[in-house]
Amino acid sequence: MNFADKLIKAVSAKGNSVCVGLDPRLDNLPNELKLNVDRSNSKSVADAFEQFCRSVVDVVAPIVPIVKPQSAFFEAMGPAGVQALANVVEYASSQNLLVLMDAKRGDIGSTATAYASAYLGSERAGLVSDALTVNPYMGVDTLEPFVDACKGNDKGIFVLVKTSNPGSGHFQDQKLGDSGATLFESVATEIEKLNEGAIGDHGYGPVGAVVGATYPEQLVDLRKKMPHSILLIPGFGAQGGGVDDVRGGFEGNGMGALVNSSRGIIFAYEKVEEGQANWQQAIEAECRKTAELLSVDALKS
Amino acid sequence: MNFADKLIKAVSAKGNSVCVGLDPRLDNLPNELKLNVDRSNSKSVADAFEQFCRSVVDVVAPIVPIVKPQSAFFEAMGPAGVQALANVVEYASSQNLLVLMDAKRGDIGSTATAYASAYLGSERAGLVSDALTVNPYMGVDTLEPFVDACKGNDKGIFVLVKTSNPGSGHFQDQKLGDSGATLFESVATEIEKLNEGAIGDHGYGPVGAVVGATYPEQLVDLRKKMPHSILLIPGFGAQGGGVDDVRGGFEGNGMGALVNSSRGIIFAYEKVEEGQANWQQAIEAECRKTAELLSVDALKS
Repeated sequence: MNFADKLIKAVSAKGNSVCVGLDPRLDNLPNELKLNVDRSNSKSVADAFEQFCRSVVDVVAPIVPIVKPQSAFFEAMGPAGVQALANVVEYASSQNLLVLMDAKRGDIGSTATAYASAYLGSERAGLVSDALTVNPYMGVDTLEPFVDACKGNDKGIFVLVKTSNPGSGHFQDQKLGDSGATLFESVATEIEKLNEGAIGDHGYGPVGAVVGATYPEQLVDLRKKMPHSILLIPGFGAQGGGVDDVRGGFEGNGMGALVNSSRGIIFAYEKVEEGQANWQQAIEAECRKTAELLSVDALKS
Repeated sequence: MNFADKLIKAVSAKGNSVCVGLDPRLDNLPNELKLNVDRSNSKSVADAFEQFCRSVVDVVAPIVPIVKPQSAFFEAMGPAGVQALANVVEYASSQNLLVLMDAKRGDIGSTATAYASAYLGSERAGLVSDALTVNPYMGVDTLEPFVDACKGNDKGIFVLVKTSNPGSGHFQDQKLGDSGATLFESVATEIEKLNEGAIGDHGYGPVGAVVGATYPEQLVDLRKKMPHSILLIPGFGAQGGGVDDVRGGFEGNGMGALVNSSRGIIFAYEKVEEGQANWQQAIEAECRKTAELLSVDALKS
């Protein structure tokens, strides 16, 4: 079963398209997890990150289809952080969550092959996940080793197309000379080609696309331009995107995209008055609320 | 002292602009290091990678100013690989080599800040190096956290501009609508701006640029377009670039660029007949040869 089919199956089973971003930041961790952390010791911080992410996984696993660890926060804690990341990937997989590694990798030929084996390898070990975010700047030939790994190992990639940051247009929105298409549209065209010959039962290939909720008009256009790609939509919640902003990323059947929420869910307890709920309860309530907003039924059109 | 000044000082001291790429690949390791490796055990492979890279560092430290570990090969061995990578960075630093981490990171705001602290932090710990390769696709705002870290901690970044792979032109060579400049020229223009206000004693800022030896004409143009950037030139040797291909990246004084050679140097023993030299001797001979070809004197014009 290709990655897209696995994902659609999980979305159907859970009834929503929420991806919970695992972005551990020490200052935002619940007090009980911060209390005994030695900030000068990266292993101590990494242990707290792991404990926090495991707890989040426990809470969200029954609710959502997929989680997205952000590698940067773990890498910031050095090798101990990367060990914690691997442990979180393994734990989330064991709890029947799909795992999308947000690492935005990309490099030339044989180096891209090494990244692909690191994150999209055939066996569950180390940092191997179900899918990976990938950067297209270096060219389509640098995406191919990732696509090969996807096809061989039933994995997925999400290629950066139109990102959610305020300055994403600086290069991405530039019109390219001959075609009249923007850079991001040109990347989208290539993604559609990369999916050729690898379309699964639900009509999607293994090559997805990242399109920010902060650009709802482009989202509508890109949904049409890449009919065989699952879209990953960051920028919901903390970054400002709402349900109406992401609607354009979905098909009539309420599927075809994942909406990521990180801070809005995992640090939900920061908005809850003390004594009203413990931190896991606050995360669960916010996760359920988000899952309802982004349910398959709510997104049908 | 800003990173560029540190680098120029090291180039002057060693008399050449060679960067030795540390790209450990199990199949290419010397037999004596492969012999006891358990290929199914990532820690065992990672240990061999570390031992190999330490030996390479021992050989090249007296000859060249800087080494460039390729993170992908270490990440492919999971957390054990990343621990080996951190050990190699620490060891190379202890041998008075500058360390450029080739990880091609890039992400939005606070995530970019996390990557910057991972690789360009103020203290030597974990994966913290002297410089980092960075991908510009997401926009100039996503480069700023890296630039801030460079300025605060005397570190450097090398932003991908025109990469060495055969397909690099697919997006990078596209002419952008209004300006008539290509995407890679537009990135170069931004790099020049990012260096403003941070120029060191030798005339260079902390923001360098990656330009492949495989595109010598663009290299000449980009040298002029970014007078305040150190250029990092991959694609020499194994990828096909020769001395005349990289000459255009240098100033009249024979400095201003680094030429990376990975496989050509570190696996030099593969081309040596058995019994002619041990593997370290073969690496040393090839490294000295490359250093002579790319000496400051040879590149003066």
